[in-house]
Amino acid sequence: MTWITQLTPLSFLRRSAGVYPDKTAIIHGAARWTYAEFARDAQRLARGLRASGVAPGDRVACLLPNVPAMLHAHFGVPLAGAVLVAVNTRLSAEEVRYILDHSGATVLVVDSALLGAVEPIRENLETVREIVVHVDPEGPDAGSTVTDPTYADLLARGDDGEDLPWAVDDERGTVSINYTSGTTGRPKGVQYHHRGAYLNSLGEIVHSDHDPSSVYLWTLPMFHCNGWCTPWALTAIGGTHVCLREVRGDAIWGLIDEHRVTHLNGAPTVVTTIMNAPEARILDYALVVTTAGAPPSPTTILEMERLGFRVVHVYGLTETYGPYTVCQWQDDWAALEPTRRARLQSRQGVGMIQTDAVRVVQVMGDDVTDWASVDLVDVPADGTTMGEIVMHGNNVMSGYFRDPDATAKAFAGGWYHSGDLGVMHPDGYVELRDRAKDVIISGGENISTVEVEQAVLAHPAVLEAAVVGVPDERWGERPKAFVILRQGKKAEPEEIISHVKTAIARYKAPRDVEIVAELPKTSTGKIQKFELRNKEWGGQERRIQG
Amino acid sequence: MTWITQLTPLSFLRRSAGVYPDKTAIIHGAARWTYAEFARDAQRLARGLRASGVAPGDRVACLLPNVPAMLHAHFGVPLAGAVLVAVNTRLSAEEVRYILDHSGATVLVVDSALLGAVEPIRENLETVREIVVHVDPEGPDAGSTVTDPTYADLLARGDDGEDLPWAVDDERGTVSINYTSGTTGRPKGVQYHHRGAYLNSLGEIVHSDHDPSSVYLWTLPMFHCNGWCTPWALTAIGGTHVCLREVRGDAIWGLIDEHRVTHLNGAPTVVTTIMNAPEARILDYALVVTTAGAPPSPTTILEMERLGFRVVHVYGLTETYGPYTVCQWQDDWAALEPTRRARLQSRQGVGMIQTDAVRVVQVMGDDVTDWASVDLVDVPADGTTMGEIVMHGNNVMSGYFRDPDATAKAFAGGWYHSGDLGVMHPDGYVELRDRAKDVIISGGENISTVEVEQAVLAHPAVLEAAVVGVPDERWGERPKAFVILRQGKKAEPEEIISHVKTAIARYKAPRDVEIVAELPKTSTGKIQKFELRNKEWGGQERRIQG
Repeated sequence: MTWITQLTPLSFLRRSAGVYPDKTAIIHGAARWTYAEFARDAQRLARGLRASGVAPGDRVACLLPNVPAMLHAHFGVPLAGAVLVAVNTRLSAEEVRYILDHSGATVLVVDSALLGAVEPIRENLETVREIVVHVDPEGPDAGSTVTDPTYADLLARGDDGEDLPWAVDDERGTVSINYTSGTTGRPKGVQYHHRGAYLNSLGEIVHSDHDPSSVYLWTLPMFHCNGWCTPWALTAIGGTHVCLREVRGDAIWGLIDEHRVTHLNGAPTVVTTIMNAPEARILDYALVVTTAGAPPSPTTILEMERLGFRVVHVYGLTETYGPYTVCQWQDDWAALEPTRRARLQSRQGVGMIQTDAVRVVQVMGDDVTDWASVDLVDVPADGTTMGEIVMHGNNVMSGYFRDPDATAKAFAGGWYHSGDLGVMHPDGYVELRDRAKDVIISGGENISTVEVEQAVLAHPAVLEAAVVGVPDERWGERPKAFVILRQGKKAEPEEIISHVKTAIARYKAPRDVEIVAELPKTSTGKIQKFELRNKEWGGQERRIQG
Repeated sequence: MTWITQLTPLSFLRRSAGVYPDKTAIIHGAARWTYAEFARDAQRLARGLRASGVAPGDRVACLLPNVPAMLHAHFGVPLAGAVLVAVNTRLSAEEVRYILDHSGATVLVVDSALLGAVEPIRENLETVREIVVHVDPEGPDAGSTVTDPTYADLLARGDDGEDLPWAVDDERGTVSINYTSGTTGRPKGVQYHHRGAYLNSLGEIVHSDHDPSSVYLWTLPMFHCNGWCTPWALTAIGGTHVCLREVRGDAIWGLIDEHRVTHLNGAPTVVTTIMNAPEARILDYALVVTTAGAPPSPTTILEMERLGFRVVHVYGLTETYGPYTVCQWQDDWAALEPTRRARLQSRQGVGMIQTDAVRVVQVMGDDVTDWASVDLVDVPADGTTMGEIVMHGNNVMSGYFRDPDATAKAFAGGWYHSGDLGVMHPDGYVELRDRAKDVIISGGENISTVEVEQAVLAHPAVLEAAVVGVPDERWGERPKAFVILRQGKKAEPEEIISHVKTAIARYKAPRDVEIVAELPKTSTGKIQKFELRNKEWGGQERRIQG
């Protein structure tokens, strides 16, 4: 007679609304909502969706910035028994259409400022029955009138009725589907289960060191891996969510000052935006910045620390609920010379408290397309032998939605294949060396673009850098660096190349350095190397590893 | 294709040994063991048990103080696929025999200083095939020679061989059986599953605010609810375990000073021992004391805070892996007058982050012996209506070992019945009023002995107090207080009674106060009220509630 309870992040809002009914759960502009109000609105949303014909298992899509409604959706949609599809707000109309149709969403909630990505496709959507428009008093269209039902209308449909239970029948049921950025082909729908979302949330609390006094600023998009599960994690601990429509340095510093923000998450490019804002100053307390999405350079880590930030470096993918590894601090690092220490901190690290181990493997087998026969052999922990980073367990997706072939391929040998190449250090810490598709093969040697970028970034005039392989008659490929200089700083390409040669092997140094004003980036701040590469390769074919 | 991993606390030592191989995991006297050594010894124990014929599902009993071997056992026994039975070290030989036979343990590991409880029964044990003697260099019998195999022999049997996987096939499988103290009948074997132990451990980390720098002093016996899962929780976070054979004030203060202990757990009586030791002094940092086992009085909470302790008040039972509720701190309490604040902090509180809600119910049904038909009706949240405290979910035992009747009775209506009477306050916090069997029925009114005790303890001369119902011709029962005075302090019974009448209703005040030198206690520091009562009632029958 075992009376277990199915794990679900819904239980977190149930608890915090009971324990902290009058505590501020959400701040947006001048508005405040308590935990009791947050739970009430999640219930209204859930009932409103039910009243709108949403049945258990249906998908509900949200195209929203980091606003209170997006927090509601992380609870209200699964509370209705439905599956949340949080759509990237930077996508084109055609990309949005693909995701809505592929996920089979029946309801779409869209912010009025993002209607431009919906209007051109609204007549062509296969499954969406209703479009609900979110008009945000803090948004640019605050005064606009819309003909569609509004988010307020949707909540009003759920005003009356019994509270739905904060519980699920099966913790392995899907809570959300997150579409990959799809740089190599169509986006894939990554399915998260309630169990994984619950456990990852507890892991985020432990590793980002949250407690009930946490004030969390929403610099990381909630459409990105469900904001690394933070809508659930921060609600679990009973902290305060500070909403943010746009990642702008001035707005961020204003909110840090106003609310004494204790935590934020973001890609290193977001961190760069914060550090390079005119408002940047040294904090008188340790604001925890949890960063991932691209390896932060040792230089970035040192600068963040100088401003008073405490850096928690994590690593993962959409397929792993966001963070899966953490560069766990070791006490004896404190005594190291700062650059050496930051070098250790810039590694991707070890599995989080709730994950399985992380492995770096070479994929063996006569026929690697016969995935069931694949054998995964760990590379030696020597810090130099590259292999593919693979993950496993509760913190890994249950598969791609309606794509059994891609799922089978991703889980070759029973472990999820990240497509990232890395090394295992003797201390058991993983270091990312490259995306399989980005690694440069020069004269038969693999060159990690990440390693070259970190050497370029160590030059004092360099603000951002991206390295890609460009065609080279003699070597096949050679590295080329695209560089943004710091404001008011100057450096000649030759000077940067010489600097790099003092740090890493000469053959790894860029042949060319191009000073640019900006770098192409994804909506989540990742540099789009394929765009830089396409320009350089023209029509030439490039052999891709892995 | 969902590749979930079964939850088990074994994964915590796997991780910490990988992440912190050289960090001090265990301190015992002058000896130190790293996490790599801790994991190695757990593996040796597991292989040694296998080599000794222990098969998956077998029970392994340990009669040990809080020594490194007991920490090993919390990992090594389940690693061997077996079930840990940690036996109370204060039991008589006959009580130990009952537990060994009932659990069907095949191997017993016993500390040489505790052989007195084993020698008289060793020839009569039904299932124990081998007795292994643990000779502790820090123990009183350090130099003794034993004829049985020693713990060192057992580990040596496991020196060679492959490491066993830190994993289980079924998270709902039993990790340990903890026997209740059995004050009302035979001890019952409470079964914990891997899933519950894993989740409770994460909850302990969150609520006791552990981080990798935690230095935890083992004042709470590991045989008591597996030390509230702390062998697993502290290992998960990578803190340092400081072992302790005996709860003595001088030893505790010596270790606090030597290792700058950050955390300890214990019943209020343990806390009293610490606070009243001649070595007690005001700490220059906040040592977290997580306390449960009996409600701490507001007076105790204020004294602990004066010494610099940060009090985390939790509540639970053997059947709930130890803690299930926590008196979660509310920011607005900081502004309250200290006595009023301590009064709020002395309540048992709300469900922990990983538990279901806690309820206070009246058990309804025409036939309460027909448990399936039982209806549980929540009492009003008015702070006065008493009901039974019931719990549910992952943090509740899977049942009593080999006792389906007791299990069915304990889970009447689908919730675990604590046998504790309490009230639900308007803010959703539960407050324990009494054990069902301790509550005093006087002139038809229920009197909470806890409430009377807290009023008695507020008298400045009183160190400890226990209140029980004694026969009264007119009222049926009246409260009587047994009191230990503080050293050097004096108070007449009449003076204490008058003091109590200023704090609570006159009819609740004790009719008699008896000044005593000591109070009968269980091995875990709980006052044994039935002993006090038995003396007062002689042969007279007493009606018991609930």
